[in-house]
Amino acid sequence: MATLHHYPLDPFSRRIRLWLAEHEITAELADELPWAPRKPFLTLNPSGVLPVFVDDDGSAITGVEAVSEYLEESRASKDGKASLLGATPVERAETRRLIAWFDVRFFREVGRPILTEKIERRFAKPEQGGGAPNMTAVRAGLKNIRPHLALIGALLEKRNWLAGDELSSADLAAAAHLSCIDYLGDVPWSESEPAKDWYARIKSRPTFRSLLADHIRGMPPPRSYADLDF
Amino acid sequence: MATLHHYPLDPFSRRIRLWLAEHEITAELADELPWAPRKPFLTLNPSGVLPVFVDDDGSAITGVEAVSEYLEESRASKDGKASLLGATPVERAETRRLIAWFDVRFFREVGRPILTEKIERRFAKPEQGGGAPNMTAVRAGLKNIRPHLALIGALLEKRNWLAGDELSSADLAAAAHLSCIDYLGDVPWSESEPAKDWYARIKSRPTFRSLLADHIRGMPPPRSYADLDF
Repeated sequence: MATLHHYPLDPFSRRIRLWLAEHEITAELADELPWAPRKPFLTLNPSGVLPVFVDDDGSAITGVEAVSEYLEESRASKDGKASLLGATPVERAETRRLIAWFDVRFFREVGRPILTEKIERRFAKPEQGGGAPNMTAVRAGLKNIRPHLALIGALLEKRNWLAGDELSSADLAAAAHLSCIDYLGDVPWSESEPAKDWYARIKSRPTFRSLLADHIRGMPPPRSYADLDF
Repeated sequence: MATLHHYPLDPFSRRIRLWLAEHEITAELADELPWAPRKPFLTLNPSGVLPVFVDDDGSAITGVEAVSEYLEESRASKDGKASLLGATPVERAETRRLIAWFDVRFFREVGRPILTEKIERRFAKPEQGGGAPNMTAVRAGLKNIRPHLALIGALLEKRNWLAGDELSSADLAAAAHLSCIDYLGDVPWSESEPAKDWYARIKSRPTFRSLLADHIRGMPPPRSYADLDF
């Protein structure tokens, strides 16, 4: 069986987990702490980047960009399901544009500061970068969520899902990023009704269940995290 | 004719220019200042992200991730040339892993701080973010180049080009990022002989000429920038 090396609250790993679930592909999950990768993982992947997908034949594919396109090329075309990227080059470009928006912009402005300060600082040893969180960075991240929720709302004025009328990997990417912040109870859903409705729809999919069952020891999620009626 | 909206010292735009040249595709170049996008460009692309590729039929493709995969899908397969991503899913995964390394890690650690502080602060008006450069950020960026040159050297111990034995989009990405820093005379090439040899090889390709001819008004490059024997 294939293995996905991941961290439960890594948004990039989460996108791949959602993609695998949508395609009904089972992979073993191997947990890795991003701030303290173990030796066998570093042998596999010296950069320490997550996620890493190790295929049945032992090929190790590193990083969300490579893993997602590798799975599209090697698996998606074979299972008869519609591609989560879209049907035409222009549709796929729109999906990839939005994936990049969340992977680059949302992560830089929101995810990275909040997750680094609230999770990594707390669980990492001092020599691994642990310590008191920089609350200025956290506050900046929290403030930066709002325009992203507004963007989601604006897209949904014209579309059923973020990149078009069908669910796509853009929805998986956005939901993966937001769900990490939601695990901390930090998404102000009341600010955007359309974004909340969209998240409720994607959260209700059976493919989301494994993410809702995640539980970081010493840091349980708020009740709303796994509640489909949040 | 297709149009590429770009900024000469934007590393993401540069990768697409190199890709188009390798595939002998001519596109009109439309200059845009990243810190002061003009109204018609913002109408085309409200996020202001560069590059944007406008195809013959008017389709506007936004962002380096979407543009590069769009061109692979819609153009590369039709011109009879070998794909610059690689031949198999595993080869393409290695190319995409390295592209992401330079687009995410190199840009975060080196390109973004140096280019923001040395170019944007200088040419932007105060209300656009102009002003005195933060020299601490510049120095951190300069220091961070060294491990990236070492990585290039390590890859070339086993390979002819960065992702394998053939030139790939990973070389174009790495060269695109480094060439922006080289325009400022800030790459310590003497630190890594293999990285310098690799850059001399890619710089000597006819496809690189348009980049070497770039000239930002008020900020000419050092003589070594366009010199093939630097």
